Amino acid sequence: MDSQFTTEIANNLFTINNLWMMFATALVFIMHLGFATLEAGLTQSKNTINILFKNSIIPAIGLVTYAIIGFNLMYPADCILGGLIGFSGFGIGTDAAGVTNSYNIGYTYWTDFLFQGMFAATAATIVSGAVAERIRLSSFIIFSTFFVGIIYPITGMWKWGGGFLNNLGFYDFAGSTLVHSVGGWGALTGVIFLGPRIGKYMKGKIYPIPGHNIPLAVIGVFLLWLGWFGFNGGSVLSADPGLVSLVLVTTSLAASAGAIGAMATSWSFFKKPDLTMTLNGILAGLVGITAGADLMTPFSSIIIGLIAGVIVVFAVIIFDRIKIDDPVGAISVHLVCGIFGTLAVGIWGEKAGLEQLFYQAIGVLTIGAFVVSSTSLMWFIIKKTVGIRVSQEEEYSGLDIGEHAMEAYPYFEKVS
Amino acid sequence: MDSQFTTEIANNLFTINNLWMMFATALVFIMHLGFATLEAGLTQSKNTINILFKNSIIPAIGLVTYAIIGFNLMYPADCILGGLIGFSGFGIGTDAAGVTNSYNIGYTYWTDFLFQGMFAATAATIVSGAVAERIRLSSFIIFSTFFVGIIYPITGMWKWGGGFLNNLGFYDFAGSTLVHSVGGWGALTGVIFLGPRIGKYMKGKIYPIPGHNIPLAVIGVFLLWLGWFGFNGGSVLSADPGLVSLVLVTTSLAASAGAIGAMATSWSFFKKPDLTMTLNGILAGLVGITAGADLMTPFSSIIIGLIAGVIVVFAVIIFDRIKIDDPVGAISVHLVCGIFGTLAVGIWGEKAGLEQLFYQAIGVLTIGAFVVSSTSLMWFIIKKTVGIRVSQEEEYSGLDIGEHAMEAYPYFEKVS
Amino acid sequence: MDSQFTTEIANNLFTINNLWMMFATALVFIMHLGFATLEAGLTQSKNTINILFKNSIIPAIGLVTYAIIGFNLMYPADCILGGLIGFSGFGIGTDAAGVTNSYNIGYTYWTDFLFQGMFAATAATIVSGAVAERIRLSSFIIFSTFFVGIIYPITGMWKWGGGFLNNLGFYDFAGSTLVHSVGGWGALTGVIFLGPRIGKYMKGKIYPIPGHNIPLAVIGVFLLWLGWFGFNGGSVLSADPGLVSLVLVTTSLAASAGAIGAMATSWSFFKKPDLTMTLNGILAGLVGITAGADLMTPFSSIIIGLIAGVIVVFAVIIFDRIKIDDPVGAISVHLVCGIFGTLAVGIWGEKAGLEQLFYQAIGVLTIGAFVVSSTSLMWFIIKKTVGIRVSQEEEYSGLDIGEHAMEAYPYFEKVS
Repeated sequence: MDSQFTTEIANNLFTINNLWMMFATALVFIMHLGFATLEAGLTQSKNTINILFKNSIIPAIGLVTYAIIGFNLMYPADCILGGLIGFSGFGIGTDAAGVTNSYNIGYTYWTDFLFQGMFAATAATIVSGAVAERIRLSSFIIFSTFFVGIIYPITGMWKWGGGFLNNLGFYDFAGSTLVHSVGGWGALTGVIFLGPRIGKYMKGKIYPIPGHNIPLAVIGVFLLWLGWFGFNGGSVLSADPGLVSLVLVTTSLAASAGAIGAMATSWSFFKKPDLTMTLNGILAGLVGITAGADLMTPFSSIIIGLIAGVIVVFAVIIFDRIKIDDPVGAISVHLVCGIFGTLAVGIWGEKAGLEQLFYQAIGVLTIGAFVVSSTSLMWFIIKKTVGIRVSQEEEYSGLDIGEHAMEAYPYFEKVS
Repeated sequence: MDSQFTTEIANNLFTINNLWMMFATALVFIMHLGFATLEAGLTQSKNTINILFKNSIIPAIGLVTYAIIGFNLMYPADCILGGLIGFSGFGIGTDAAGVTNSYNIGYTYWTDFLFQGMFAATAATIVSGAVAERIRLSSFIIFSTFFVGIIYPITGMWKWGGGFLNNLGFYDFAGSTLVHSVGGWGALTGVIFLGPRIGKYMKGKIYPIPGHNIPLAVIGVFLLWLGWFGFNGGSVLSADPGLVSLVLVTTSLAASAGAIGAMATSWSFFKKPDLTMTLNGILAGLVGITAGADLMTPFSSIIIGLIAGVIVVFAVIIFDRIKIDDPVGAISVHLVCGIFGTLAVGIWGEKAGLEQLFYQAIGVLTIGAFVVSSTSLMWFIIKKTVGIRVSQEEEYSGLDIGEHAMEAYPYFEKVS
Repeated sequence: MDSQFTTEIANNLFTINNLWMMFATALVFIMHLGFATLEAGLTQSKNTINILFKNSIIPAIGLVTYAIIGFNLMYPADCILGGLIGFSGFGIGTDAAGVTNSYNIGYTYWTDFLFQGMFAATAATIVSGAVAERIRLSSFIIFSTFFVGIIYPITGMWKWGGGFLNNLGFYDFAGSTLVHSVGGWGALTGVIFLGPRIGKYMKGKIYPIPGHNIPLAVIGVFLLWLGWFGFNGGSVLSADPGLVSLVLVTTSLAASAGAIGAMATSWSFFKKPDLTMTLNGILAGLVGITAGADLMTPFSSIIIGLIAGVIVVFAVIIFDRIKIDDPVGAISVHLVCGIFGTLAVGIWGEKAGLEQLFYQAIGVLTIGAFVVSSTSLMWFIIKKTVGIRVSQEEEYSGLDIGEHAMEAYPYFEKVS
C-alpha cells in the first residue's frame, strides 16, 4: 500500500506541475497576439495588414518548424563538438514514458515541446517589429523559418540544452539572452541590411513617424506583461509554490519599475510623459528581470526594472541618432535590456559576483557573435537572391496594398 | 490511516482536475470576445455596434437559458425514445455530492454546468457572423435563445449526453460536429432565409465588401486559438497530463498548418497572400482537429490542419459563387471544416477505419438533417411573424443607427 | 512513513491552491487592460493617450506602492485603536516559512502580496474613468499613489485585515464595498471637485458626449468579466473545488442577468437597446454579486444581476440629471451597484437576515464616510496646490496633445 501511495502522490504532483506548465504555455502563446498588436499599433496604417500577417504566420511557421527540426536541435540527446551542436532527428513523438514523471517531474514530453515551441516563435516576432514597413514579406518569411528552426535552437542549446555555456556557469533563467538578445541581434542586423525607412532621416534631421493606433500598442504591452507570467513563471519548469510566486513578484515589480523609470526619464527629457516610452519601459523591465527573475529580492527587481526603464529611453534616442531605424524600439527593448538583464545576474541577487558577471559577459558575447554572423549571412544571401526590400513606390503607398492587396481600415478617411 | 490517505489523494486529484476544467471554462469564455472582435472586424463600420451587441448579449442569454433548460436537456438523467431526447427539469442546483468526486472524478457539478454553458453559447455566436449586416436584432435574439436553449442541447445529448449516436459509435471529441457544424448549419439556413446583402451580387458579378478593422479580426483569431486550448484541452474532462498536453499539441499544430495551408492556397490563387484567408485557415485547422484532437499524432494533426486550410479557401470562393453571402466565412470554417474534421476521425488517427468513417458520416447526416429542418422552421416562423430582415433603408444607412441609434466611431471621418 | 505521506499530501494541496491563486492573480492583472480599453473606448479620441497613460501607469505605481507600504497597512500583524489601523513596516519579504503552508494553506507570501496588490490597483483605476477628459495628469498620479498606498489599505484592513468591521460581522466576500465602492466614492468626490466637462450641461440641457471606439469598450468589458473569474474565484483563497466553481457560476450568471436587465431597461426606456448600457449592465451584475458570490444560489445570483442591471441604467440617468459628469458610468457601476451588492448579502443567500443587513449597512456607511472625507481632503489639497483641472484650451484641444504631445490616431481624419 505504501508504495502505491508514493506513486499516487508523485503522480498528483506531476499532474499539478504539468497543469502549470500548460497554463504557462497558453500565456506565452498570447504574447504573439501582444507582439502583433504592439507592432501594428506603433507603425503606419498603410502597413498594418503586412505587420499583422507576419505576426499571424510566425507562430504557425514557428511551431511547425520547431516540431520538424528545432526542438531536436535545442534539446538533443547528446551534444557534440564540445557542446556546440546536437540533433536528435526530425519530427516529434514519444513513447509511454514521455507522458509520465519519468520523462520529467514537471511536464510531459508534449508540454515540453509546446512550451519551448511557443518561446522559439517569439524570437522571430522580435525581429518583425524592427524590420517593419520596408521588408519584403517573402524575405521575412524565409528569414524567420531559418531563424526559428536553426539559429534560435542552436544558441538555446548552448545553455538550456546542456551545451558549453551551461557547463561554463552562464546563467539565463528565462531568456534575457537566449530569447530576447537573440531576437534583438537578428533585428539589429536586419535593420542594418535594410537601411532606414524613406523619409526617416533627411538632411541630418530625424523625422518621427508616429504609430497609427496607440490603443493597439497598449493592448499589446499588457498582453506581453500577462504573457511574461508564463514566460518567467513557466521557466521554473514546475509549479513549485515558492519559486514560481517569487518569480511572478519580481517580474511584475520589474515591469512596474520599468514603467516608472521610463515615465520619469521621458518626462524630464521631453518635458511631457511619453506613453510609447512608458510602454517600452514596461517591456524593458520585463526583459531586464528575465535572466535572474528567480534570484532577486523584490527590492533588487525594482532597481533592475528602474534602470532598464531609464536605459530603454536613452537607447531609443541613441539608435535614432546613429540612424538605426527601428519603428517599434525592439532593439532597445530586447537587445539592450536583454544584455543588461543578463549582466544584472552578476550584479544583484543570489549569484552576484565578479566571476558570475564574467560568465554572463561570455554568454552575451558568444551568443551575440554567433547570431550577428549567422543572421548577417542570411540577410546577405536573401538580399542577393530574392531581395530584401520592397520597391520605393510600394514603400510610399504602403505594404498592405503592395504585398497583400488589402487595406486594414478601408472605410476610414486617412490624413493625406 | 490508509483509507484516509486514499481519500485525501483522491481529493487532491479531484481538486487538480477541477482546477484545469475551470481554467478551460475561462478560456472558452474568452472565445466569445474572440468571435465578437473577429465578426466586428470583418464587417462594415456602420454595422459594428450591432455585431458587438449580438456578441455581447449571446453569452448572457446563452448562460441563463442553459441554466434554465439547456443543461438538463443535454445531460438528462435518462434518455427516452431510443436516445433521442431527455429532460431533468428546469433550473440548476446540486446536493453536497455534486461538489465531490462522487459526481465526477474530473469536475464539480458547477464546473460541469459552466464549462458546458460556455460551449453552448458559442454555437449561436457562429450563426451571428454569417447573418451579419442585415438581420433584425430582435429576430436574431429570438433565434439564438431557442438555438442555444433547445436545438444545441438536443443534438449535443445525442452524443455527449449518452444518446443514440454515442451508442452507435460516433466519435466527436470536442465538437467538430456537435458545436461547429451545428452552428454552421444554423448559419447556412439563416443566410438562405435572409438572402445576400444588398450590392453583394449584381449582374452576375461578385462585389467584395471588405471588413472595416482588420486588427480587430486578428485579435479575434488569436483569442479563439487561445480559447481552443480550453475548448479541446477541457474536453479531456480532467487534467490528465499526457492526454491534455497531446491535445494542446495537436490543436496548435493543426491551427499552424491551417494558416500555412490557407496562406499557400491564397498566394497561389490570388497571387498575393490574403490575411483574412490565412486567419480563416487558422480557424479551419482548429475546427478540423476538434473531433479527433485526442486521437492524432502530431504529423496527422499537421496533415488535417493543412487540408482544412486549403478547403476553407475554396469553400469561401464556392459559397460566394453560389451567392451564399456569409460576411465572415463562418459557414466555410465551421460547417465545411466541421464536417471534414468529423470525417477525419475515420481517416487518420487511432480510430481510423471504414466502419468508423461510416459512423462519422451518420453523425454528420443525422445532426445536419435535424439542425437544418429545425432551424429552417424557426427562421420561417420568425420571417412570417416578427420579420427577419431590416428595411432596405436601414441596411444602406447601417444597423448601428437603425437598431441602436449609436455609432461605433463617431469622431472619425468615413469614406463616403 | 505515514507522517511523510501526510506532509506530502498537504504539500500537494498547497501547490494546487497556490497555483489557482497565481492564476487568479493573472486574471485580476488583466482587468487593468480591461479598464484601460473600456475607459479609452467610452471617451473622446482627443483624450485617448491620456486615459491609456493613466491606466498603464496605475498598475505600475499601484504595485510598487503596495510593496512599499500598502500590503503592510492592509494586513498588519496587529491592529491598534480598536481595529482601526495597523502597520508592519516598509517593504516586503519573507522567511522560508512564507513559501510553505505554515504561512497559509492556500498560498505563499509572494502570491498573497501579488494577488492583493493587483486588487489594490483596481481601486484607483475605477476613479480614472470618472475623472477622465479634464483632470491634470500629475494631480491624478498624486491622488492615485495615496489612494492605493494609504486609503484603500486602511479600509481594506477594517474587514480583510481583521479590523473592526470584521469583528462586527460585516461580510464582503470579494469587495463590492472594499474595492468597488471605495473606488466609487473616490470617483464621486473627484467628479464633484472637478466639475463636469465643458459643454456637457448647458442651458439646462444634457449633451451626450459619445465614446470614440466602442469595440475597445467591448474588449474591456469582456476582459473585466474574465478577470472577475480571478477576482471572485480567487477570493475563495484556495482551489476548493465546490466553493470556487460555485463562485464562478454565480459570478457569470449575475453578469449575464445584468446584461439582460440593462438591455431590457434601455430598450423599454430609450426604445432602442443601448450597447453601452448593456455593457455597464454586465459590470453592474459583476459588482453586485461580488460581496456575496459564495453565498448565493444560481437563482439568487440571477435576481441580483437583473436588479443591478436595471439599477445601473437609472443611476446613469440620475447622475446625469444632477450634473455629476461621469464619462464612463463608473460611479453608477462601482459605487451604486457596490452598495447594492453589499446590502444584497443581507437580503439573499446563506447570511440573509435583518441583523446581517444592518452590519452590511454599517460597513457601507463607515467606509463611505472615511473614503469621502479622506479623498475630499486629498482633492482639496491637490486643487489648492498643483491644481486639479487642465486649462479650458487644453480641454478643448484634448489632453493627448496638452499632457503628452501625442495623438492616438495620427493618420485618421477626425470629424471637425
